[in-house]
Amino acid sequence: MADHDVDRAESPGPAAVDSLRWEERPEGPVLVLLDQRRLPAQEVELVCTDVPALVDAIRTLAVRGAPLLGMAGAYGVALAAARGFDVDESAELLARARPTAVNLAYGVRRAQRAYRDAMSGEADARQAAAAALAEARALHREDARASASMARHGLALLEELLPGGGYRLLTHCNTGGLVSGGRGTAFAVVGAAHDKGELRRLWVDETRPLLQGARLTAYEAARAGMAYTLLTDNAAGSLFASGEVDAVLIGADRIAADGSVANKVGSYPLAVLARYHHVPFIVVAPASTVDLATPDGAAIEVEQRPGHEVTDFAAPAIPEAGAGAATGVPVAPLGTQAYNPAFDVTPPELVTAIVTENGVVSPVTGAGLAELCAPPGRGAGQDVRGPR
Amino acid sequence: MADHDVDRAESPGPAAVDSLRWEERPEGPVLVLLDQRRLPAQEVELVCTDVPALVDAIRTLAVRGAPLLGMAGAYGVALAAARGFDVDESAELLARARPTAVNLAYGVRRAQRAYRDAMSGEADARQAAAAALAEARALHREDARASASMARHGLALLEELLPGGGYRLLTHCNTGGLVSGGRGTAFAVVGAAHDKGELRRLWVDETRPLLQGARLTAYEAARAGMAYTLLTDNAAGSLFASGEVDAVLIGADRIAADGSVANKVGSYPLAVLARYHHVPFIVVAPASTVDLATPDGAAIEVEQRPGHEVTDFAAPAIPEAGAGAATGVPVAPLGTQAYNPAFDVTPPELVTAIVTENGVVSPVTGAGLAELCAPPGRGAGQDVRGPR
Repeated sequence: MADHDVDRAESPGPAAVDSLRWEERPEGPVLVLLDQRRLPAQEVELVCTDVPALVDAIRTLAVRGAPLLGMAGAYGVALAAARGFDVDESAELLARARPTAVNLAYGVRRAQRAYRDAMSGEADARQAAAAALAEARALHREDARASASMARHGLALLEELLPGGGYRLLTHCNTGGLVSGGRGTAFAVVGAAHDKGELRRLWVDETRPLLQGARLTAYEAARAGMAYTLLTDNAAGSLFASGEVDAVLIGADRIAADGSVANKVGSYPLAVLARYHHVPFIVVAPASTVDLATPDGAAIEVEQRPGHEVTDFAAPAIPEAGAGAATGVPVAPLGTQAYNPAFDVTPPELVTAIVTENGVVSPVTGAGLAELCAPPGRGAGQDVRGPR
Repeated sequence: MADHDVDRAESPGPAAVDSLRWEERPEGPVLVLLDQRRLPAQEVELVCTDVPALVDAIRTLAVRGAPLLGMAGAYGVALAAARGFDVDESAELLARARPTAVNLAYGVRRAQRAYRDAMSGEADARQAAAAALAEARALHREDARASASMARHGLALLEELLPGGGYRLLTHCNTGGLVSGGRGTAFAVVGAAHDKGELRRLWVDETRPLLQGARLTAYEAARAGMAYTLLTDNAAGSLFASGEVDAVLIGADRIAADGSVANKVGSYPLAVLARYHHVPFIVVAPASTVDLATPDGAAIEVEQRPGHEVTDFAAPAIPEAGAGAATGVPVAPLGTQAYNPAFDVTPPELVTAIVTENGVVSPVTGAGLAELCAPPGRGAGQDVRGPR
């Protein structure tokens, strides 16, 4: 299928990760996901034939990461349409599967709109389903192009902020090819620096509780041949104190209109540490992550996840009793209550720059963001350089 | 044995933890340790009949925590003496078992000095061994008294800094009865607030990589009937941001002459967060933790621990192949390198107050510390209120 070739061409080399693909099978179309819960121990594919299965995969983080969630949402709507399920109902289920990542709802709405537009025209249900799929594929391609643009803008920013190269970059969670139609967001910038021989070291936060850094970013860094070192999230302070971090690069799950950034829990403490040590704190995310309808950080709904993710330890190699169950090895006493927000919110004054495919906003202001993300820039992969 | 009764009286109630005790057995004296690696899943006792076994228990964290390490070191010297091993050689092995906690060497030296003093007098080897044991027991009792004093001084400080009570306190690692002849250091202050009905919530950092918070502090908080909530270390930022932390209380493994505090990795990021949010950051430690021979933070040797503690996950319920081996479940790709400092160093300007059994130093200055810890105050359990 031509679309696949295009998508793969954006993440070159045999190491490219196929985190999500559409397949036409004799029994009907399916969405094939790389089960990220099993990495790096096992590369297991998860085949979704309907939306509830996909919603479960999203909720349990088999598929995760802001850009990939957008694509999964769009393909999910296409799947519902192609298999004759209620498209609007499926779209609602998908959009509500996780509350914080705006990209999920964005992808769902785009495919849903394409379906509705087709249905309100002369199309029959089959043609409308094809329109939804075409929109999902368009989003997929756009994401790959946006990734390449972010990498270019982000690397230019690093070269400007840190003349001399040889960067020691700290990242949190996972933002690479696993979550993208291309090479990802923050990780794509790291990759661009690596390609140019300018990456001295990638510091990888393990990212508790689900260890996306240890499991996924380390996996991608190893495949890319980067010099990387894993650390517990709380060891980052020592690295800052000894001057071993030149910049922090992270992704985002939602950016409010004022520039407040919701990202994986642990991002905000890094922002405070970066500020205290005068180290740039850079957010890399597609323009679709910017949600102008959310005025500020206080308006961002932060997903609270089950306490067992903290009180019990689940590793890919530990057998699971069933999907979604509390299946780890208990580490805390029985009955222990846990506080487990999936995200935190970093206010714009702690963010040095936001890098999108449309350019860079720095300093981060609502006006700068609005200009960068105004239509027709939104998601269009333009190369307009934003206000600096 | 009378000593045991005295020690237990300092940590009242059936919930008291017996983390270390000396036993005279028909085949000779032994040191019995509660194996803290197995908690909270199992309460297993480890019987040490010689110093190499004790050194191994110290290195693998079966016995841990600054005050308890001091006691273990002193009893270890007494054990070597009682069993006829070379006392000076044993003392060297013990003192070097872990480099950062000053209390370990302090306890070793006290028992060693008692032994030597006896030998250089009219005592025979048996009497000298008894002198070493008496010194270890004295240290044990002093620690229990110091713990009670710290609790009193710390609670008075909280009442002064946070009028109105109903404290929401955040702690890191484990500083309770498990590491003390009494109720511990920072945890003893939390316990005093709880006894008075003034503890609204104890926020417990899980404390990666070895999860002393999730495994041990949660265990002690549950036994004490406290309202506590566990969190990943990187979720503390969200609590600060939403104003849900009234004060941070931690212990210390070494305090330099200038007031720099070495404590479990993750303490320094909390200090930076506390400063950014104008929340008091309080260190509670016996005066023996203050090392006037170490001029400043840069002079503190920070122990680097094996990478497998980060790349592999070991839980009490996961069977171990052998003591000290890399026996966890791998979570990162094979070959992943990890940065794993056991401690970090918080500079005095980020510490609101240091609470010792001799009183409180605030603001933290070298002069204030020296005055508080000068002989005869050192380890003597005095009630002199320090400079404020």
